[in-house]
Amino acid sequence: MTNFLSLADVNDLDALIQSGRDAKANPFADQHLGKNKTIGLLFFNSSLRTRLSTQKAAQNLGMQTMVMNVGQDSWGLEMEEGVLMNGDKAEHVREAAAVIGRYCDIIGIRAFAGLQDRVSDYQEQVMHQFAKYAGVPIVNLESATRHPLQSLADCITIEEAKLTARPKVVLTWLPHFKPLPQAVGNSFAEWMNARANAGKVDFVITNPEGYDLAPEFVGNARIIHNREEAFAGADFIYGKNWSSYEQYGKVLTMDPSWAVTMDDMQRTNNGKFMHCLPVRRNLKVSDAVLDSPQSLVIEQAANREWSAQAVLKEILKGM
Amino acid sequence: MTNFLSLADVNDLDALIQSGRDAKANPFADQHLGKNKTIGLLFFNSSLRTRLSTQKAAQNLGMQTMVMNVGQDSWGLEMEEGVLMNGDKAEHVREAAAVIGRYCDIIGIRAFAGLQDRVSDYQEQVMHQFAKYAGVPIVNLESATRHPLQSLADCITIEEAKLTARPKVVLTWLPHFKPLPQAVGNSFAEWMNARANAGKVDFVITNPEGYDLAPEFVGNARIIHNREEAFAGADFIYGKNWSSYEQYGKVLTMDPSWAVTMDDMQRTNNGKFMHCLPVRRNLKVSDAVLDSPQSLVIEQAANREWSAQAVLKEILKGM
Amino acid sequence: MTNFLSLADVNDLDALIQSGRDAKANPFADQHLGKNKTIGLLFFNSSLRTRLSTQKAAQNLGMQTMVMNVGQDSWGLEMEEGVLMNGDKAEHVREAAAVIGRYCDIIGIRAFAGLQDRVSDYQEQVMHQFAKYAGVPIVNLESATRHPLQSLADCITIEEAKLTARPKVVLTWLPHFKPLPQAVGNSFAEWMNARANAGKVDFVITNPEGYDLAPEFVGNARIIHNREEAFAGADFIYGKNWSSYEQYGKVLTMDPSWAVTMDDMQRTNNGKFMHCLPVRRNLKVSDAVLDSPQSLVIEQAANREWSAQAVLKEILKGM
Repeated sequence: MTNFLSLADVNDLDALIQSGRDAKANPFADQHLGKNKTIGLLFFNSSLRTRLSTQKAAQNLGMQTMVMNVGQDSWGLEMEEGVLMNGDKAEHVREAAAVIGRYCDIIGIRAFAGLQDRVSDYQEQVMHQFAKYAGVPIVNLESATRHPLQSLADCITIEEAKLTARPKVVLTWLPHFKPLPQAVGNSFAEWMNARANAGKVDFVITNPEGYDLAPEFVGNARIIHNREEAFAGADFIYGKNWSSYEQYGKVLTMDPSWAVTMDDMQRTNNGKFMHCLPVRRNLKVSDAVLDSPQSLVIEQAANREWSAQAVLKEILKGM
Repeated sequence: MTNFLSLADVNDLDALIQSGRDAKANPFADQHLGKNKTIGLLFFNSSLRTRLSTQKAAQNLGMQTMVMNVGQDSWGLEMEEGVLMNGDKAEHVREAAAVIGRYCDIIGIRAFAGLQDRVSDYQEQVMHQFAKYAGVPIVNLESATRHPLQSLADCITIEEAKLTARPKVVLTWLPHFKPLPQAVGNSFAEWMNARANAGKVDFVITNPEGYDLAPEFVGNARIIHNREEAFAGADFIYGKNWSSYEQYGKVLTMDPSWAVTMDDMQRTNNGKFMHCLPVRRNLKVSDAVLDSPQSLVIEQAANREWSAQAVLKEILKGM
Repeated sequence: MTNFLSLADVNDLDALIQSGRDAKANPFADQHLGKNKTIGLLFFNSSLRTRLSTQKAAQNLGMQTMVMNVGQDSWGLEMEEGVLMNGDKAEHVREAAAVIGRYCDIIGIRAFAGLQDRVSDYQEQVMHQFAKYAGVPIVNLESATRHPLQSLADCITIEEAKLTARPKVVLTWLPHFKPLPQAVGNSFAEWMNARANAGKVDFVITNPEGYDLAPEFVGNARIIHNREEAFAGADFIYGKNWSSYEQYGKVLTMDPSWAVTMDDMQRTNNGKFMHCLPVRRNLKVSDAVLDSPQSLVIEQAANREWSAQAVLKEILKGM
């Protein structure tokens, strides 16, 4: 594995999931792999789970870690080519990426969607510019359109918790008053479609009209706008809010009936509830769901350490 | 030791003080204890000494450290139960604590008093919520009402510097124009009362009318509002400003005669001056006192490393 | 070496340059030197290269690192002596330096010029106060008037890339709309003058009228205000903007003809282009120059790791 920007960088998903589960069982077995290796973690946006779990995974592998909040610890970065840099950005990604690539053996980057310009966001400029200029492997710590470390942790969590060979997995939109990126929803759909294609899950998406994800992420998934119908018989309910793709970055509704409650969960096949966190309690999901034995949200977040460790191990092995 | 939230978590104070002094004499003797263990340090407020000394102590013990400024590096955290989270806090402590507890073997937390609501501050919600939900030991890096790592460092400092078996220790209020928390004063009183009960010190508090600390912290200490009387014959003068407990969070006076000067020190038994730092020179204490051989403030701050190391060692030994 | 504040702290510059080149060839050969040693890195200002390269160099040497953004992670620091501290600075450097010196074996400090008061800036108060009170070696991570780790990296870069025994090195002012410190220009001049005095380079400075550096930094260098004349036959063009020293901190011109283009480079002896970064593309230097094989800017930044490692090694050896 050279970069980990999306599912396309994964050769063998089953093996990667298993590698994460092996790391969970035996966290310190590969400490030799990271000896004298350093990962730089660059945050253009806030982070809790990703910040801590990726540091932890790297340290489990014997790596050194350096964490930097871009634009706060350092300078704002220009991503466009060929511009006259007379604005508020003091450094170009060409230099920043190349230089950080000389200090770090791997670079992890978090850079959310701006939600102003769909074309620009969906070009994934930050990830691609870093991948182009850094000269070392890049790990996506959530980009404008994807959050693959989360999706891998989700796959690990489903593998651990599933009670049938081919569980029904339902991605459901949740209400929120702020416009949030589509990255987690997109990425989960991308990875679940891969699992569905391999016969591992039955994957359904439910969301209000106007909230369909981008077609390239919906793929072969069934979109069911009637959420009661979608929830019926589900083994896993995966909740997430996202702003509209069609009317890009807009909040079209805050309909509270889309929040997940115990009544909803009772329509499932004694299903498990998943969410990538942070979650606003009682706005998106009720306390009762989150505090029930059906909730997997803590285990799912804990698995972020093991998804990161599986990815970093794969990259280190290739060095 | 499971948590270190206050003196109540200490089984044997004499042994803990001695453990700190042993760490000071031989900092790297216990590096095996922290192998493959990680401490997360969460700061809801600024820190210099606590930030650096606790990192250093953890590293001396062979631990990995991860530092996070909450609300700046990550999201604001909701502490109340059962609320509809439609405000500016994106994550609940139930999730945050439980998740961080999966990445870290120990969590240190700094969260100052808001000084708006006495009942709320004195409930120590942040510490108690983390202790309830993290599932791993919590270390108080200064909470709304206490700063026990400071108090332990203060005990170590007094043990090192005392010239008599039962020195007279005087906690004196100092003037300041900003409302500061009562945590350091409370905590020092709590620990000195324990030392007094064990016959180790004679403990006196002096402060202006209206500035008495909360009764549960004053305990059996004598409060002497006449500061000249209080200073007479003292072996240690411990200066600190705090806002009023009675008129909660208010600045009732800035009377500069409460600042400690060399004239004051001359009323003591060639006493030593202590302060937890940061200290505003010439507002709270004169340059002459801080720069005199009687000042212990640097040694006292240096001892923060050893108080942290004694506490972390005790927790690691119990794992 | 006790401190590394400026060139005056270097005993043998040739040996230090060679030590940096040795570290580059064999980064992990001296890991025993830093065992159980900790460097604290204090940033009063933003940093990317210095932050990462110094951490990396310290880790290469087996050291622990602790990074702190002063005034953001911790308190603002008062630098003046004898003042009544009733303003916005909560702690005095006397305490802060002495305390950090108890937690750290070496302290690195970045503190830029304020550009308001020339006398104050050129007194280098922050560096000198820390050096006076910390009790441990201080490393200059760019101060008001100097950036010696950059200058050492520049020397290494020139040694690596030079094609003649005594190359012509030209420091050229570049246009910028913001007032920037003189530190990099000063420091490069100081070090190049030393190299010139040792017969290693021919050193020339070119800048518009009104932009001459301080006389103590210009030293024996030739200032040529006609940039075409200065560039003629150059082996190295070192670009940098600085604000006026004479009309202190002012921007006197933004004349775009001082930006370096390929036309300029063609006047040189197939010269190399250097810049300490960050660089605003097309404002100070054209894309064509930065992306040409003549540009050394990435290698120069990469050499920051090795200059830091050479300096830290020298300090550690003296402990």
